[in-house]
Amino acid sequence: MADIIIVNGELTDKVSVFDRGLAYGDGVFETVLAKDGRLLLWEMHLQRLTDSLTRLQIPTNAVSALEATIIPYLKDDAQQTVKIIVTRGNSQRGYRTPKDVLTNVVIYISDTHRTDAELSHKGVRVKICETRLAYQPKLAGMKHLNRLEQILACQELDNTDYHEGIMLGQQDEVIEATTHNLFLVKKGELYTPDLSQCGVAGIMRTYIMDKSREIGIPVHTEQVSVEYLMRADELFLSNSLHVIWPICELEGTGFEIGEVTCRLRDKVVEKMYQDA
Amino acid sequence: MADIIIVNGELTDKVSVFDRGLAYGDGVFETVLAKDGRLLLWEMHLQRLTDSLTRLQIPTNAVSALEATIIPYLKDDAQQTVKIIVTRGNSQRGYRTPKDVLTNVVIYISDTHRTDAELSHKGVRVKICETRLAYQPKLAGMKHLNRLEQILACQELDNTDYHEGIMLGQQDEVIEATTHNLFLVKKGELYTPDLSQCGVAGIMRTYIMDKSREIGIPVHTEQVSVEYLMRADELFLSNSLHVIWPICELEGTGFEIGEVTCRLRDKVVEKMYQDA
Repeated sequence: MADIIIVNGELTDKVSVFDRGLAYGDGVFETVLAKDGRLLLWEMHLQRLTDSLTRLQIPTNAVSALEATIIPYLKDDAQQTVKIIVTRGNSQRGYRTPKDVLTNVVIYISDTHRTDAELSHKGVRVKICETRLAYQPKLAGMKHLNRLEQILACQELDNTDYHEGIMLGQQDEVIEATTHNLFLVKKGELYTPDLSQCGVAGIMRTYIMDKSREIGIPVHTEQVSVEYLMRADELFLSNSLHVIWPICELEGTGFEIGEVTCRLRDKVVEKMYQDA
Repeated sequence: MADIIIVNGELTDKVSVFDRGLAYGDGVFETVLAKDGRLLLWEMHLQRLTDSLTRLQIPTNAVSALEATIIPYLKDDAQQTVKIIVTRGNSQRGYRTPKDVLTNVVIYISDTHRTDAELSHKGVRVKICETRLAYQPKLAGMKHLNRLEQILACQELDNTDYHEGIMLGQQDEVIEATTHNLFLVKKGELYTPDLSQCGVAGIMRTYIMDKSREIGIPVHTEQVSVEYLMRADELFLSNSLHVIWPICELEGTGFEIGEVTCRLRDKVVEKMYQDA
């Protein structure tokens, strides 16, 4: 389990049974990589958190205190994973948004797994999941607490040796993986699926798109079919913890861990440490 | 707040921060009406709970102990509301279903609001919400803990004098209300929307359909358009706590609280007390 747990500023591993996160998944979360005492891409995480809370009409005032709460628990010489949950707060039974409710903030700080780092070089094997992502533009892009679709998709990976599963939308178009965004490289250009109907708009996805453009790699956000995916020159996954995981196998078909993926991976890692 | 809270058999109002209900909405709930010490339609609630847990691959062994845990806290001479949450249990970060995890069970017991009873006779005013229900057949019908869509829809009722909001599916067909199922009466026959793509298959919905057939009222489950809804002879809402709420106004159009609605309401109330 996590090493440090902080609930509303106090060290405790309990929350109220009246928390609307428990009752309805009424909140959002962020997973942030910390290195040598610094929270990486922190401003971007704060911005997404604020935007998502605003879309859900959850007050954002707890956001400004997060950094000061977390920093004292970060180690000077290690990578750590910081997960932050912000829920609408406690209430009685009922979906109606209560008045004058105070948000609850849960922070989990734990050491980062070393095995994940290997996969950024060796690559991962992925399958295409049967569980589809439902279209809900009012929630699309957010990292909210309603995650049953991802849980069902991950169950399809049980008793297989796949590292990850790609999820399609309702029209069988490619959207993302269960805990990663997805990128295709084709003729030296970068493609990532449009997320206006469903999916999580990852911080690392945005960062990779920005860095790609900076080094002259064109980036396209568009609808991606499975056929198009299978014909990519290179494929990779991204998230805040793993940065870039090249895909070396998709449903039995091998993919080369190519030059663009490696160049981007090295550039992004270098830049995100500089930016922190 | 609730009068009695029981977490895994103990009187406490805290749950673990590692509960997957909080992290991902990874669980289900039931809301049961208790009258004079008896849990109404209990077998049907247990069956839906068991079916939903099975669909989510959550172990069902906690289900058999629920009644014995709840009964000592029920009052001999009152109506009470019993809410039961069952989550997959505690785990580390990650969507993957952990092995050997123990479910968490939270039970909330509280007195039932009297104002709700008046509305079964006076009727309620409803609007049609803009927030649509996404199509997800793998979750359709279940009363799971991923309820952000209902919360967004309920926000549309804020600062209005509507009692409830009707939610449409992605093709603008009628599905249900935020906390109720929906029935139409037309030429003496009963219609309720199909829930194979989205929506919660309420216990009271099933019970009303059964009782209607018993007293000779034909029941149809089918796709319902807004136009069809507006041309109904009678409209009513149903859930386990309110049984039947006639709709007296839909978006400014008045509806009669008709004979079929009243006959069903009285019959269902009578039968559910007998059946308990």
